Amino acid sequence: MPELRRDPVVGRWVIIDSDHSKGPSEFSREDNTPTRQAICPFCPGREHQTPLEVDAVRPNNSPANTPGWMVRTVPNKFPVLSSDGFLQKEGYGIYDQMTGIGAHEVLIETPDHDKTLTDLSKEEMQAVISQYQGRFRQLSKDSRFKYVVIFKNFGPSAGATVEHTHSQVIALPMVPKTVLEELKGAQQYHQHNSRCVFCDMISQEYQDKERIVVENNSFLAFCPYASRYAFETWIIPKGHSADFASTDEVIRAHLAQILQDVLKRAKKALGDPSYNYYLHTAPIGYADGMCYHWHIEIIPKLTRSVGFEWGTGLHIVPTLPQDAARYLREA
Amino acid sequence: MPELRRDPVVGRWVIIDSDHSKGPSEFSREDNTPTRQAICPFCPGREHQTPLEVDAVRPNNSPANTPGWMVRTVPNKFPVLSSDGFLQKEGYGIYDQMTGIGAHEVLIETPDHDKTLTDLSKEEMQAVISQYQGRFRQLSKDSRFKYVVIFKNFGPSAGATVEHTHSQVIALPMVPKTVLEELKGAQQYHQHNSRCVFCDMISQEYQDKERIVVENNSFLAFCPYASRYAFETWIIPKGHSADFASTDEVIRAHLAQILQDVLKRAKKALGDPSYNYYLHTAPIGYADGMCYHWHIEIIPKLTRSVGFEWGTGLHIVPTLPQDAARYLREA
Repeated sequence: MPELRRDPVVGRWVIIDSDHSKGPSEFSREDNTPTRQAICPFCPGREHQTPLEVDAVRPNNSPANTPGWMVRTVPNKFPVLSSDGFLQKEGYGIYDQMTGIGAHEVLIETPDHDKTLTDLSKEEMQAVISQYQGRFRQLSKDSRFKYVVIFKNFGPSAGATVEHTHSQVIALPMVPKTVLEELKGAQQYHQHNSRCVFCDMISQEYQDKERIVVENNSFLAFCPYASRYAFETWIIPKGHSADFASTDEVIRAHLAQILQDVLKRAKKALGDPSYNYYLHTAPIGYADGMCYHWHIEIIPKLTRSVGFEWGTGLHIVPTLPQDAARYLREA
Repeated sequence: MPELRRDPVVGRWVIIDSDHSKGPSEFSREDNTPTRQAICPFCPGREHQTPLEVDAVRPNNSPANTPGWMVRTVPNKFPVLSSDGFLQKEGYGIYDQMTGIGAHEVLIETPDHDKTLTDLSKEEMQAVISQYQGRFRQLSKDSRFKYVVIFKNFGPSAGATVEHTHSQVIALPMVPKTVLEELKGAQQYHQHNSRCVFCDMISQEYQDKERIVVENNSFLAFCPYASRYAFETWIIPKGHSADFASTDEVIRAHLAQILQDVLKRAKKALGDPSYNYYLHTAPIGYADGMCYHWHIEIIPKLTRSVGFEWGTGLHIVPTLPQDAARYLREA
């Protein structure tokens, strides 16, 4: 008998195929090994092929837009939103329109074309997380922006169009839909229970144990009870914290450690899958910090989303979250 | 400057790349020509390879589960929900669970393995629509079900796993998320304006004209102002109607005509793309018929959904809806 499960934050139901829970070997595999590219614009020595950098980690204080960086952030050459101009809203009959103001940056995670996040040293991985926070803080100062999304597409089937490993940062003039839904669900839960729904999820995960992948001093990694995707994994701070921007150096180091650990486990268990992850945090200047709890959602790209899921918002999940967690735990 | 546009029903923003609106030739093409298959379980003569049929259009009254059908509906051999059993809800700590009760059927649209919907005769296409409605009405009688989704995946990249052209029908024990969002948005609009938001969209589309693809006596096909996908096209009854199940034979014939017309245009303009479509109608027994307006949403599969869209619910649309409509109009 398949199972229907409901997410406690946004109330979304998912269908889980509990009778034929798929193991890692039942998904098709991709070859995501980097190849040598003669003209990669993200490699050192080609800094002039990108727009001028907006930030970088340069251990030896080398000049901007030259080699010597550990992490480098540049505006996206093909931005989905424009950083120049004013935010103008306009009605268009019954429709609403806004100028497409925002920022769209590429965060190059390492100068080494042959490396991915799982190959980085502890210091290199920490530099990536530190740069995430740096961009978040910097972009939050622009009064036109209401939200900053940090995300990563790894592998062609997850939408990566440049092979050299990188993340993306997009600043938006509105809070995006999925975050609004989480905020609303978390507020409603807090009104009823005077507790953070994410904190309660963490307690529940510790009680049930079977969906936990790994933990360290500051973070828990688990496969959510009502996962939308096979092997979906969340990384969440154990202590209540609404805002990623306010995390300190110790917490950031722990995040770097557990994020890399989970990605290594997914790589081993699932055969180097393409994946997406994104960071959900409270909107810029969000006052109601008791209700929200920032986290990272990692989604290995193992199946295709099809018409049914688009038409209904109802995901069909081929692997039981407790099975996924076990595979990842044992990897 | 990119444009942000908001959908008037659910309030969802989308980013439209208005500066570089992509034409049909800028998307990659797939070969969706059917190949001869020696062992297709949906072909006539192999009726015993599927579960026993639940309905069929048989012009010469041939016996069930034998050849002679024009359209044939069978239970899915690998159903995502189980039709046997009772609906049981259970708490699981802070989580909610339901038994996966539902129905999952395959509607084989033609006995001819080499045909797709665009190749069917007028009568054959009408038989498909009539069977859609028949399954909808039949499944609506089961008191365990709250909603029936009719949808189609065409082409491998849209999730079709069996080549022989078919649609799917899923009956659900709950109203799915996207429909709930539309119902809620439409109710709020009706409270404020005492009008149906979909009827107002139709008026607006006639006023603006540029997003209209084609129309007939009963239906309008248009590319929505705040499309989520390139070349997304909606087919909507011009007269107010909440419930697909109540449409009469004349309306069904008009639907068959315009659906095939739009699919032919998409095939010609976009080079036989993979696509999904699904039918959104009021939930079973929904009383508030003034607020909702049933329609079909057609989504050619031209781009990949990536981490940013999953993480934010914010779609990035590479083609202006008015450009998409023009290409489809002129096809």
